[in-house]
Amino acid sequence: MAIQQLTLNQVNQQMQECIQNCLACHSICLNTVTYCLQKGGNHAEQSHIQLLLDCAEICETSANFMLRTSQLHARTCGVCAEVCERCAENCDRMGDDAQMKACADMCRRCAQSCRQMSMATA
Amino acid sequence: MAIQQLTLNQVNQQMQECIQNCLACHSICLNTVTYCLQKGGNHAEQSHIQLLLDCAEICETSANFMLRTSQLHARTCGVCAEVCERCAENCDRMGDDAQMKACADMCRRCAQSCRQMSMATA
Amino acid sequence: MAIQQLTLNQVNQQMQECIQNCLACHSICLNTVTYCLQKGGNHAEQSHIQLLLDCAEICETSANFMLRTSQLHARTCGVCAEVCERCAENCDRMGDDAQMKACADMCRRCAQSCRQMSMATA
Amino acid sequence: MAIQQLTLNQVNQQMQECIQNCLACHSICLNTVTYCLQKGGNHAEQSHIQLLLDCAEICETSANFMLRTSQLHARTCGVCAEVCERCAENCDRMGDDAQMKACADMCRRCAQSCRQMSMATA
Repeated sequence: MAIQQLTLNQVNQQMQECIQNCLACHSICLNTVTYCLQKGGNHAEQSHIQLLLDCAEICETSANFMLRTSQLHARTCGVCAEVCERCAENCDRMGDDAQMKACADMCRRCAQSCRQMSMATA
Repeated sequence: MAIQQLTLNQVNQQMQECIQNCLACHSICLNTVTYCLQKGGNHAEQSHIQLLLDCAEICETSANFMLRTSQLHARTCGVCAEVCERCAENCDRMGDDAQMKACADMCRRCAQSCRQMSMATA
Repeated sequence: MAIQQLTLNQVNQQMQECIQNCLACHSICLNTVTYCLQKGGNHAEQSHIQLLLDCAEICETSANFMLRTSQLHARTCGVCAEVCERCAENCDRMGDDAQMKACADMCRRCAQSCRQMSMATA
Repeated sequence: MAIQQLTLNQVNQQMQECIQNCLACHSICLNTVTYCLQKGGNHAEQSHIQLLLDCAEICETSANFMLRTSQLHARTCGVCAEVCERCAENCDRMGDDAQMKACADMCRRCAQSCRQMSMATA
């Protein structure tokens, strides 16, 4: 079953989309870690893997704050937007590569919805 | 964006569905914690909230093992199936309540796909 | 073995103390959730349990950013300090109770070291 | 403050030591990921980093089940013991290296206490 089909208590449409984006961004970042380590070279450089792990983790944390409908979700979403943007830029630097491009796109989409959440309730 | 639209590296159709189920089950369990605490009464009893938190966490962990395409994902999926089944039974005991029913259904669906993953690679 | 006995790579004394405080604060908050649910009454009110869960999670995330020696740890530590302070205040409101007092003290200690980390590298 | 100084509710001496070992093992594994990626070569091979991430995550999950005093902690401790043992063996294969040796030792210590927890309550 897909997350968009769930009826979540006290979660409006905008927040549900942000949760989905966070979980999808978390998913592709974690999956991309394995891809990059197998590829090696500059894909496997420490700063890149670290940023993918940072992004995966803060996306998970932000999703969880929203799923609990915590008042402080705007704060985690703010940091999440920042980490996602950094991660997208770093993925871009890896050049012409379908997995990196998909990961960068997802990070940008997640950054955008987290940015909106962080401002809506600031 | 939905997780089923992501192209995940080295993740086949069956595993991707299991990842989705784990993330959806994680999501509804965590959201249901807030619902139950607001409702109070036997919905908020310690053993029930604890099981929802246990289920949310092991679902997240199992999803992450699969997203990293870890060889040991069959082991986390096995425990996940067990925790999901217990959580579903406990949700059933809360009686005629739409949120508890949706949560129990999702737990059963997740248990089933995790059980399959745990045996496929055992 | 205790975390303070570990030799962590690229982690200085101040950061190692902050990691310890985050893990100890995470631990007592999660343990206090079970305590409060068993106690019931205003200890189990939704806003209090939610804040304990928020605090436990952001402490874990902040510790993990520092353990990976991520450049962005100052951002997660900043949010962590804020959530810890709110959690401490909420624990205080529960009145004269040894577990709540211990939890509030740990939250304040963690908030203080996270605040320092967030400014040191801002 | 150190975790062993905390007074945890309904957590006996043996369980508190196991929680500490899980958190210390989680900590050194995550820190070792950064170390290995910087070192490169066979330290950074995909299977090794993946196992360190798996071990860090299941240690965290097991610690959290015990901190919540969940009845199902024996199940997560059982998987944790298995992942820790695999991770220790893999660290050993990296040869004569202080960080890898410290990580392997911590994994073995954690495996041992998780094994005991998984049997005590089986």
